[in-house]
Amino acid sequence: MSINTKEFYSILASKMEASAIREILKLVQNPEVISLAGGMPDPITFPVEEIKEISQNIFNKKSAQALQYSNTEGLPELRRCILDHLAKDGNNGELENIIISSGSQQGLDLVGKTFLSPGDVAIVELPSYLAALNAFYSYGGELVGIPMDDEGMQMDILEEKLTQLKNEGKKVKFIYTISNFQNPAGVTMSLARRKKIIEIAHKFNVFIVEDNPYEKLRFEGEPTPSIYSLEKNGSVISLGTFSKILCPGLRLAWILGNKEIIRKIAILKQATDLCTSILSQLIACEYCQSGKLEENIKSNVQIYKKKRDTMLNALEKYFPKETVWTKPQGGFFVVATLPEYIDTGEMFKEAIEENVAYVPGAPFFADRKGQNTMRLSFCFPSAEDIDEGIKRLGKVIKKRIKN
Amino acid sequence: MSINTKEFYSILASKMEASAIREILKLVQNPEVISLAGGMPDPITFPVEEIKEISQNIFNKKSAQALQYSNTEGLPELRRCILDHLAKDGNNGELENIIISSGSQQGLDLVGKTFLSPGDVAIVELPSYLAALNAFYSYGGELVGIPMDDEGMQMDILEEKLTQLKNEGKKVKFIYTISNFQNPAGVTMSLARRKKIIEIAHKFNVFIVEDNPYEKLRFEGEPTPSIYSLEKNGSVISLGTFSKILCPGLRLAWILGNKEIIRKIAILKQATDLCTSILSQLIACEYCQSGKLEENIKSNVQIYKKKRDTMLNALEKYFPKETVWTKPQGGFFVVATLPEYIDTGEMFKEAIEENVAYVPGAPFFADRKGQNTMRLSFCFPSAEDIDEGIKRLGKVIKKRIKN
Repeated sequence: MSINTKEFYSILASKMEASAIREILKLVQNPEVISLAGGMPDPITFPVEEIKEISQNIFNKKSAQALQYSNTEGLPELRRCILDHLAKDGNNGELENIIISSGSQQGLDLVGKTFLSPGDVAIVELPSYLAALNAFYSYGGELVGIPMDDEGMQMDILEEKLTQLKNEGKKVKFIYTISNFQNPAGVTMSLARRKKIIEIAHKFNVFIVEDNPYEKLRFEGEPTPSIYSLEKNGSVISLGTFSKILCPGLRLAWILGNKEIIRKIAILKQATDLCTSILSQLIACEYCQSGKLEENIKSNVQIYKKKRDTMLNALEKYFPKETVWTKPQGGFFVVATLPEYIDTGEMFKEAIEENVAYVPGAPFFADRKGQNTMRLSFCFPSAEDIDEGIKRLGKVIKKRIKN
Repeated sequence: MSINTKEFYSILASKMEASAIREILKLVQNPEVISLAGGMPDPITFPVEEIKEISQNIFNKKSAQALQYSNTEGLPELRRCILDHLAKDGNNGELENIIISSGSQQGLDLVGKTFLSPGDVAIVELPSYLAALNAFYSYGGELVGIPMDDEGMQMDILEEKLTQLKNEGKKVKFIYTISNFQNPAGVTMSLARRKKIIEIAHKFNVFIVEDNPYEKLRFEGEPTPSIYSLEKNGSVISLGTFSKILCPGLRLAWILGNKEIIRKIAILKQATDLCTSILSQLIACEYCQSGKLEENIKSNVQIYKKKRDTMLNALEKYFPKETVWTKPQGGFFVVATLPEYIDTGEMFKEAIEENVAYVPGAPFFADRKGQNTMRLSFCFPSAEDIDEGIKRLGKVIKKRIKN
């Protein structure tokens, strides 16, 4: 006899399925496959020697602290470092405005847990970051998607949708936006739209959750002030992370916002994981204090810019004329759009047979459209692999093009 | 104008309050206060030199892996090490039976998320681990408490309660037990009760969640086989942690159980924090592979045994004859029970004025009783501080004793 597990799952757990990326990455274990799927940083960007030296220092001087439990909100010295880093771009806050999270995914999870009861609405971009959608789904959030254009989320449609949801008696809790080099679309929200989204959020009394992992990875053009820095009523929650500017392995990110919200998030985080690794926090803190973070970011930007160029050049060379793709000014990703009759989910198997992987676009769309899109990452593979991968993929797509 | 945050919280988030321990620990910042409150291991038990050396080795040889994202289930080599460690006590499993969690608190959170919808019942011991209760509350679980005696949870009352809940049409999802050196009560469940709880769980078709952080910290007597090792239908989920046998700072624990449940937990963990720090996992893995874990556990047992003895001796010396306390054979905690007319929550302020802290017992009781109990930790303070702390506390209590 064995127990029937399914009847034991919570209502929400029973709805959660393995993500598409997850299943895909399992297929990509074969070393012959060039993966343009994952969003992993290039390890060449990790300041290994510095981290090694810092960790020695910590074990020599602070081992009793570094290997112990710590407080839920995170190391005050690290929060100060992050606040100083953020203040350079006008993102101001005090210690009570910031909490450390165990990676930005935990930030998204805690945002979901703080705001969403089953049936509450979160507005998201079409497309949006898959794992954010999953975090919100996991609390029963209903996700309503708003299309983007070259300036980001379309504000007329957002306003229309919010009016409609209000009339339907739906409770909208927040608008989730990845304002810079959006994942997956690569779009950056224009200044005019940033001002407009604040106006709309105030009018409809909803929070804005601004997810900003790629902000510092700008290859060209001038940075736009964050929505957080432009808003003055405490209704923007801003998420940032060390994963793309230092390394993901430390599992360190932060949530910046309204003190009351941060306090509530701390209470929830305590029940979720007690505290984030203090060893990781001490390492990141000493690294920031060494003054090398800004320098490291600058060198990373050069590395990723070259890779972006390699990918855009390869797309020009190898992709059929029936396809279009984004030209991101920063971040990790390009989205390619194929003719509507090509389903990138269906095509995926053929791509794997040609030893190249990507992420089919549909799961990024809260409305389950975007079947003819794909996300292509230039962050992890080498320049040679990017060129060869796009070449292989071009070949796969061309077979499906109708004349 | 500023936003009214309260109207935005999810139903469950709005019910979550800061925990008693948390608020207490804030009061204990004053270095004059001897804290018998926290459950922090003694840093003397951390194998600092080994961890330092291992981490150097990792940065030299595996930095690209150690600082990168990793898989959600955890490093296979580490899971193998844990399985080998557990198999010595008859806790068997394959790789698919185990997942790494970011500390045992995340294990409890994921158990809550996997099983509990609002209104679902979890059975817990009276008293039980505060942060586990909070994790289950945070998913809307209704907690029903079962009293314990010297052999652990009272099985006749458990069976009665389950019958009653069944008749009321309540869905009971699992029974949560800390089977060894229970937190806070210090009790270890007897073999007969372990067999009985399995029989009852099968009869009523409920899971057992066996939380086992202190199992290896046995000062005397023979170990009892775990409930997990005794059960054969895959309806026991077992939680273990490195926090008490290596160090808490790595934030590493594990969940062992039914493959289907572990797979579901992995899907939920992915939306919660993507993955646990691979740097931490590599450190723990090399430490286990070095063969030093068992040796370290043995030396820790000696350290904590002495501290337990110090506390029991001090209690004899300084506590009034109207009080009783547990004599745990392992773990970190003693629970003292005072006359019913003394409320340890109310008395706490006086204790702080005498520069000693403890945790009032009531929050550990799902039925909110136990106001005349207190948890006393002997894990962190020095022998001198244990003696002096109990002396101070005895003085505070004596003032409240009625003649």
